Amino acid sequence: MALWDGRFSEGPGDDMVRFSECLDVDLRMWRDDIEGSRAHATMLGEVGLLTEAEVATLLAGLSQVADEIAAGSFVPQPEHEDIHMAVETRLTEIVGPVGAKLHTARSRNDQVATDVRLWLRRRLDELASAQRELVAALVDRAESDGHALMPGYTHLQRGQPIHLAHHLLAHAWAVRRDAERVADARRRLNESPLGAGAMAGTPHPIDRHRTAELLGFRAPMDNAMDAVACRDHQLEAASCCAIALVHLSRLAEELVLWSTSEFRFVRMGDAYATGSSIMPQKRNPDAAELVRGKSGRAVGALTSLLTMTKGLPMAYNRDLQEDRQQLFDTLDNAVACTRITAGMLRTLSVDHDRFATELRGDFLLATEIADHLATRGVPFREAHHVAGRIVGWCEARGGDFGLLSGEDLASFHPALDAAALELLTDPVAAADRRTSFGGTAPAEGQRQIGALRAWVAAGA
Amino acid sequence: MALWDGRFSEGPGDDMVRFSECLDVDLRMWRDDIEGSRAHATMLGEVGLLTEAEVATLLAGLSQVADEIAAGSFVPQPEHEDIHMAVETRLTEIVGPVGAKLHTARSRNDQVATDVRLWLRRRLDELASAQRELVAALVDRAESDGHALMPGYTHLQRGQPIHLAHHLLAHAWAVRRDAERVADARRRLNESPLGAGAMAGTPHPIDRHRTAELLGFRAPMDNAMDAVACRDHQLEAASCCAIALVHLSRLAEELVLWSTSEFRFVRMGDAYATGSSIMPQKRNPDAAELVRGKSGRAVGALTSLLTMTKGLPMAYNRDLQEDRQQLFDTLDNAVACTRITAGMLRTLSVDHDRFATELRGDFLLATEIADHLATRGVPFREAHHVAGRIVGWCEARGGDFGLLSGEDLASFHPALDAAALELLTDPVAAADRRTSFGGTAPAEGQRQIGALRAWVAAGA
Amino acid sequence: MALWDGRFSEGPGDDMVRFSECLDVDLRMWRDDIEGSRAHATMLGEVGLLTEAEVATLLAGLSQVADEIAAGSFVPQPEHEDIHMAVETRLTEIVGPVGAKLHTARSRNDQVATDVRLWLRRRLDELASAQRELVAALVDRAESDGHALMPGYTHLQRGQPIHLAHHLLAHAWAVRRDAERVADARRRLNESPLGAGAMAGTPHPIDRHRTAELLGFRAPMDNAMDAVACRDHQLEAASCCAIALVHLSRLAEELVLWSTSEFRFVRMGDAYATGSSIMPQKRNPDAAELVRGKSGRAVGALTSLLTMTKGLPMAYNRDLQEDRQQLFDTLDNAVACTRITAGMLRTLSVDHDRFATELRGDFLLATEIADHLATRGVPFREAHHVAGRIVGWCEARGGDFGLLSGEDLASFHPALDAAALELLTDPVAAADRRTSFGGTAPAEGQRQIGALRAWVAAGA
Amino acid sequence: MALWDGRFSEGPGDDMVRFSECLDVDLRMWRDDIEGSRAHATMLGEVGLLTEAEVATLLAGLSQVADEIAAGSFVPQPEHEDIHMAVETRLTEIVGPVGAKLHTARSRNDQVATDVRLWLRRRLDELASAQRELVAALVDRAESDGHALMPGYTHLQRGQPIHLAHHLLAHAWAVRRDAERVADARRRLNESPLGAGAMAGTPHPIDRHRTAELLGFRAPMDNAMDAVACRDHQLEAASCCAIALVHLSRLAEELVLWSTSEFRFVRMGDAYATGSSIMPQKRNPDAAELVRGKSGRAVGALTSLLTMTKGLPMAYNRDLQEDRQQLFDTLDNAVACTRITAGMLRTLSVDHDRFATELRGDFLLATEIADHLATRGVPFREAHHVAGRIVGWCEARGGDFGLLSGEDLASFHPALDAAALELLTDPVAAADRRTSFGGTAPAEGQRQIGALRAWVAAGA
Repeated sequence: MALWDGRFSEGPGDDMVRFSECLDVDLRMWRDDIEGSRAHATMLGEVGLLTEAEVATLLAGLSQVADEIAAGSFVPQPEHEDIHMAVETRLTEIVGPVGAKLHTARSRNDQVATDVRLWLRRRLDELASAQRELVAALVDRAESDGHALMPGYTHLQRGQPIHLAHHLLAHAWAVRRDAERVADARRRLNESPLGAGAMAGTPHPIDRHRTAELLGFRAPMDNAMDAVACRDHQLEAASCCAIALVHLSRLAEELVLWSTSEFRFVRMGDAYATGSSIMPQKRNPDAAELVRGKSGRAVGALTSLLTMTKGLPMAYNRDLQEDRQQLFDTLDNAVACTRITAGMLRTLSVDHDRFATELRGDFLLATEIADHLATRGVPFREAHHVAGRIVGWCEARGGDFGLLSGEDLASFHPALDAAALELLTDPVAAADRRTSFGGTAPAEGQRQIGALRAWVAAGA
Repeated sequence: MALWDGRFSEGPGDDMVRFSECLDVDLRMWRDDIEGSRAHATMLGEVGLLTEAEVATLLAGLSQVADEIAAGSFVPQPEHEDIHMAVETRLTEIVGPVGAKLHTARSRNDQVATDVRLWLRRRLDELASAQRELVAALVDRAESDGHALMPGYTHLQRGQPIHLAHHLLAHAWAVRRDAERVADARRRLNESPLGAGAMAGTPHPIDRHRTAELLGFRAPMDNAMDAVACRDHQLEAASCCAIALVHLSRLAEELVLWSTSEFRFVRMGDAYATGSSIMPQKRNPDAAELVRGKSGRAVGALTSLLTMTKGLPMAYNRDLQEDRQQLFDTLDNAVACTRITAGMLRTLSVDHDRFATELRGDFLLATEIADHLATRGVPFREAHHVAGRIVGWCEARGGDFGLLSGEDLASFHPALDAAALELLTDPVAAADRRTSFGGTAPAEGQRQIGALRAWVAAGA
Repeated sequence: MALWDGRFSEGPGDDMVRFSECLDVDLRMWRDDIEGSRAHATMLGEVGLLTEAEVATLLAGLSQVADEIAAGSFVPQPEHEDIHMAVETRLTEIVGPVGAKLHTARSRNDQVATDVRLWLRRRLDELASAQRELVAALVDRAESDGHALMPGYTHLQRGQPIHLAHHLLAHAWAVRRDAERVADARRRLNESPLGAGAMAGTPHPIDRHRTAELLGFRAPMDNAMDAVACRDHQLEAASCCAIALVHLSRLAEELVLWSTSEFRFVRMGDAYATGSSIMPQKRNPDAAELVRGKSGRAVGALTSLLTMTKGLPMAYNRDLQEDRQQLFDTLDNAVACTRITAGMLRTLSVDHDRFATELRGDFLLATEIADHLATRGVPFREAHHVAGRIVGWCEARGGDFGLLSGEDLASFHPALDAAALELLTDPVAAADRRTSFGGTAPAEGQRQIGALRAWVAAGA
Repeated sequence: MALWDGRFSEGPGDDMVRFSECLDVDLRMWRDDIEGSRAHATMLGEVGLLTEAEVATLLAGLSQVADEIAAGSFVPQPEHEDIHMAVETRLTEIVGPVGAKLHTARSRNDQVATDVRLWLRRRLDELASAQRELVAALVDRAESDGHALMPGYTHLQRGQPIHLAHHLLAHAWAVRRDAERVADARRRLNESPLGAGAMAGTPHPIDRHRTAELLGFRAPMDNAMDAVACRDHQLEAASCCAIALVHLSRLAEELVLWSTSEFRFVRMGDAYATGSSIMPQKRNPDAAELVRGKSGRAVGALTSLLTMTKGLPMAYNRDLQEDRQQLFDTLDNAVACTRITAGMLRTLSVDHDRFATELRGDFLLATEIADHLATRGVPFREAHHVAGRIVGWCEARGGDFGLLSGEDLASFHPALDAAALELLTDPVAAADRRTSFGGTAPAEGQRQIGALRAWVAAGA
């Protein structure tokens, strides 16, 4: 028996039941639905719309429904249509007619809106927590292996020698911003739609501030139509997930590259790699690839949500039922990918020797000449041009800077002498010289590690 | 025991197992997996890589696995990792060591690629069939109610009177193109990757033409790496779904609009509408709203697939595991939405009286004056300007063309006389005059109905 | 002469020049580029890397370049490759060799990153300001026309009578959240990348805090690689735009609907509507349609940016050149659509009579019976069912609640009597009864107007 | 003077003019607009709606307008509103009042629809031609360098030795399918909307078959409303571009990887690489990166178009003005990226020595053992497990297969003997053994080269 069957002569066909069914998705909100109903019942009692006895009965009944669902002894079924009716139906079986009073001064619109916010708030908290763990993993790794010297890349071409810490910490700052974005989204959505009714509020003397308080919301939402119609909190949460996953995809891409035979900078922990059914020597960085793949899914989920919402008039439209699946999926992916990335980082082995080898041979120190000349007052553009010609000279001879004598060097510019040769041969010194704020010099790495550790600790 | 455990000292942790699991998604391909294995085993026997007895044993075993899965007596479990290993594991339990020979000259890469193509081909056929049904529903409706005269809209403003048939057939032609796109995608993907191995082919003397033939594929794919790495058939299928669903969303939008109290052109069948939990008089066009919402999901699914695939080097990368969920979901939605739309159309009631009423009062026939003047040799731009001034004159007096006398009309342009007044008062005549090819005149509607019926019949 | 031509034997071909050219897009950042260079030069002087005279020369030269670009007497050309080189080239023409010293301790990477942040900050400020104007327009309209009673919709079906203020204020709260999101994005991006160099910092003794201060940034970014590689500030800004435009698209959809002959609730101001070339009576709500269309573009721009960034390893990759066009376009659209929407609202005429007429005839007050019964202690689900049967009874007789006598009503439930008939006939009373926090009662509208006006004033 | 100014008392404000302006985008269709008008005028003459003299005047006038635009002596201006009015206005200046007759029996709706199809058809032809050139470039390269042996990758881990031809031809087949998709889209859109009017056809006795013929369209579209309202041809074209660009992004990713110091398989031609402003040794694969970036833009453009179109009721809505910019941009990108990719491939140098070196050391031939054992009747799963243990044995000893003696090998499985050692040391033989259809053996490469050359030749 559907909710509205007082008036329809014919029910939906089987295909339409399947088409419009959302129970399997919404089932995940059962705790939130019961939590919302508990607050609603409590408030109805406080304002006199229910008797104390009725409230007590309803709360006991709701607890029993929760226990039964948790234990698997009550399993919502498609004929309940959605999780909200499933809970109410079971409640009424348990407590009798008083169960039908629970929905007083409430509409399914504000009920669902409340449930989604509770679910989302909980899940964003888990995401923020996972992000802190990930920053901690990056920082720990920067501390344990950060002194390793590696090529810094732009265009995936080796540019300058940097410390591994510099690279890892770049990711850590990005993840920290992701967590801050999540915190902003969490704060903004933490308002209560409960009591908004279908869209116009209710003539009953309810106390929306009280239900907001009971549910841990900052305040009730100011406008009942906005409360049931708005979806920007979902769009914002999905944006946070998409951006965070794009960040993770960049790190994942690097882990995939660094795990190749060609780079060989790292070796993934066994728990995060898999083999091949036909090529036994393979050690595939599956976890990193899956993170990268799931980031594509997050982009799609956000697109779905934006596209669904676009152009919908106020207030609720059934289109929006479709948004939960995408929202739940993208939050799940964000939490899981963040945790898996932390796990990968903690179990990775870094090949310090390989890093060292790879710093030889290319012209990674060419910038040193340009900077050196600039210090001597040579206009930078000219200095840069000189450095380019030196590289060209070496390349033409099939070698690297090792080919250069002091005299050769001097021939390129009067401000260059034999002493400058050193600049071209010591990558550690080159990295350590970059002491500007945020530079790759070790002290700057230490400063960042301290700042990030303090941030992680503050959120714990 | 994972496939590659000959070499890894430590297995994946629980979180990684959950993270990388895809069984619940891939389970849907079990029929396709067994069909592919049957063809592979048959061919292995024909080329001598298996004995006749081995082939017979494998085929019997595969039939039993299929029966067991269909009956629910064998249920693939997460520890099987994926549906392909689940089938092989169960097969080996049934037939013994010969089960381990099935994978000779095959890799999981070409096996999965084959399964996905078989699944997709089947599902595209269902989609094309649903699209024909939908065209049939539109054409039937055009025949039964198409004579109704209604306002034709641009910018959602009433423009010219048209017959309902004209409007419905516009949708029918669009759905027909959708079906043709599906047919093109189907034809293009109907090639066999089986036997491509991991990416390089195999040294075994297999016969890929034979397995292609057994599986109903047009031919084996020409390049083994392409066979396992390409995903454009999935992208194309998802594009077809997204475009088709965008079409359905446009029709759905109209059904939502036409069901409003303001338009009241149609009334949705009970099976496709629902009521409200708090507003008992509501008759919500849920099915149409869900179609519109699911079209947003299809856009997101396509975005996901494109984004996942972008920038991936050859050949297989694990990212691509994520594509199946999106692909399956979007095909399911496309098929379901197409069928539901046909159902809505067949059960709709059209309010002919309302249409008629709504054609009065606005200035829908203003174009008639412009066209009339153009026929008399008045340059069209001038004719148009005259018509605009006549509308302005009526509006300023708070009325419509009914206010005009023949003299009034003549005062706007010498080529206008009392006879022209008729042009402004008979919407049926206005519609019926539009006999140009594809115009809204009834004969043109009949021509289209005939053409579309022939097309539906040809595909049945 | 390209920057790197010290070493390449062959320059790019014409097609490649066109392919990689970005001047027409980046040209818009010329002010930001010169502002960044001024801060850099000033700091270089303060730390002793340039002499006071050199700084004075550079600042004067930069001012001249700015004047020339503003006046159109210097027009950057494709052969300058990008706006940054164009400015430097012209500067060097004006000031001579010292111009080539400006790039000391700076890379194009941190220079571009700085310019984009300056541009974006400025543009986000304009967006926030436009959003406040829009909230003000909504609030003004709620005050001037908000007492109008209209149907509130869900599923685009009439649900309950509400005041227009309630509806307009729902949009106002949404736009306010949009502005708060923009403020968060603005705060988060307001950090200085200048001095990060290519990715590793610089050996020169620069003062990044000083340039940050000169440019109004909160602080220098903590990690040089992050400073040049991160794009989340762009993704967040584009998300803000997409969400805000989706909000505007919902309002635009309503304006389109309300402008139809069927709804006729509003009439667009002449400045925001257009006519038709062939149907002179048309009054097309073009501005609203364009806002709706441009919201689709914003979804695409965000998708582009996420997809481009996904999977890119550190640090800079040339792919990211493509992001500016999308970013600039989406900010432009967001600002323009917000302003246009405010303009539409201010010039709209609202048809109060039409609203009133439209409240009769449907069963908009059915909820009143359900709420009334619930107040009398009838369990809500039962009360709802009773209301549904009353509607059914009226519908079956082809009429509305006007058909009911007190006796008829009483026959549905003992708690109903003749007095309850009033509940079904006075929509104003029904709306005014909804005094719960956020409800549609006038006092709640006044409270919201006050709160929103205070917010607008606080930001001005 | 706007088209509809017979009736509006107030024109649009400056901001609205800018907001709704599309001239800069539509300007590109001027040739198409004039071509469409020529066909329309010719037909109007043939059916007697214009005199021969009028037609001659109009055709001459249109030629002059075309000459003037081509020469830059007539430049459409914003006050013309769009390119169609610009042409008509200039035409009327040239030919006088007869110019105003050109629009007889035509609406801006069908005119624009025709122009877009003509533009798109032309551009799709260019794309298809560029795709053929790209296949030719891949095939040429496969022929000249295809014998190089390289590692084949899955998960970016080295799997099996393959010939470079095998890899390049995998891309060639993908591009060929892209071209076939373009051909399907081209065929499907090649129908004429001209004469559809605003949506309802026209009462004038026009001949739509004749204008279709004059414009090279297959036929007139069957339904006038569909003709002006449908956008699936644009969505399909944008899908083709997105899929094709995703393909190019995969190849681009490989070129970026292969150009790194770590892979060093190829060296980009000077024309397609750039240097760095601060790191003179860099040789950045900019062209490949830009192709990859622009593929993200194509995903966004498609998303925009789908999102814009979703949920729009019939027939034309102004939202759709926004689609051209996205459509034009994505076609431009597709054509340019395809040509640039062909250019990159033709100017690349391949490092054959490097390839050879890189085939040593890993365990690329492990599959040979598994396949060998399978041939001897060892069930494949067991064979695979044996191969895995052999790899593990070598790894544990810090070496590769070179460590193994015949005895060592035999100890792993009775079917292995000293002769099998050869299988593990000759990568060329391993690749050449894979002679299955589509395998990496040279003869298979030759077969594919022949087939693809024939296809290229057939389309030329």
